[in-house]
Amino acid sequence: MTNRRQTVLLIGASGTLGRALHDTLTARGHTVRTVGRFSGELRYDITDPSRIAALYEAAGPVDAVVSAAGTVPYKPLAEFGPDDWRAAFTGKVLGQVELVRQGLAHVAERGSFTLITGVLAHEPIVTGAAAALANGAVEAFVRAAAVEIAPRRVNAVSPNVFTESLDVYGDFFPGMGSVPSARVAEAYVRSVEGAQTGQVYRL
Amino acid sequence: MTNRRQTVLLIGASGTLGRALHDTLTARGHTVRTVGRFSGELRYDITDPSRIAALYEAAGPVDAVVSAAGTVPYKPLAEFGPDDWRAAFTGKVLGQVELVRQGLAHVAERGSFTLITGVLAHEPIVTGAAAALANGAVEAFVRAAAVEIAPRRVNAVSPNVFTESLDVYGDFFPGMGSVPSARVAEAYVRSVEGAQTGQVYRL
Repeated sequence: MTNRRQTVLLIGASGTLGRALHDTLTARGHTVRTVGRFSGELRYDITDPSRIAALYEAAGPVDAVVSAAGTVPYKPLAEFGPDDWRAAFTGKVLGQVELVRQGLAHVAERGSFTLITGVLAHEPIVTGAAAALANGAVEAFVRAAAVEIAPRRVNAVSPNVFTESLDVYGDFFPGMGSVPSARVAEAYVRSVEGAQTGQVYRL
Repeated sequence: MTNRRQTVLLIGASGTLGRALHDTLTARGHTVRTVGRFSGELRYDITDPSRIAALYEAAGPVDAVVSAAGTVPYKPLAEFGPDDWRAAFTGKVLGQVELVRQGLAHVAERGSFTLITGVLAHEPIVTGAAAALANGAVEAFVRAAAVEIAPRRVNAVSPNVFTESLDVYGDFFPGMGSVPSARVAEAYVRSVEGAQTGQVYRL
């Protein structure tokens, strides 16, 4: 797959990261097809696994799937309940996992999947337990799936809080720095154009 | 809490690991109260979070909660479906997470929780994607919860395949060695009697 122009399915195209991914991947000559719940070329909610089959059907053949989509609840640990853990699982794990599994029949033989996880898998913060749980699940899944889907590949990108989001979320990440979304997008390029699999890129 | 005799709630007491935990913890002078779905002093299925409140109510005050309970489906990646991922989440993640959260009101102020994860979080094998997902979720949760529950503590134990189970499961773990359940039980002792928190003990 390497550096040739690819058709890339971009899930979560409307967010901070999704926009950066669109710019970066387009600038590198790839054809980006945008997917979102409420915007984009293809309107699908991947947290409903039954919609993923319809998404792939509508999209046709693609070389790479990149996901920038995932939501989890944030609250103090004692205030979580069973439905919150389920929401984290459904909002960030299940859809991404099914993107890979259902995508095996639709992505090019040497194509790739790149999923989103995040710093909270390894750097705990107060209110971040559900995010950690979801991120840990995605990262371990990526390592596991990689050995079964070759020559297709799967990696995850684990960003710190975005520099663009520091105004809103910075207080939750004291002394932890930040990363510009454009730099996170470069890690997706590494996954899409490179040859690695089963990796988690932390930045 | 250190080395004094503790009252320990043992979830999943009837399995290979549960029996080893019972022997090891009892030999060290602790009072072990056994919990199981179909056997043990207290009959509760922790995969139903609503039963966990009843379990803690019935158990009364405890110093430590140790979990050896968790089931996940095993199959080739392409054969998994949404219900399988949900089963892995419910079978190994949700109950253990809620044991900690709901246990905060019942476990001694310097008490501990020790959860079970497993080698597949970091060492992928074919058919192990759901196990990996669940283990990764539990490990990241433990790191996250630790910073919110102090002075209570939480750790995870991540064992290789049990030596006692090699006859049945050995073919899935080629060249990966094994660990006797008695040695895994020692890691639980380290968690229960020690001072560490947020750790994952791999063995």
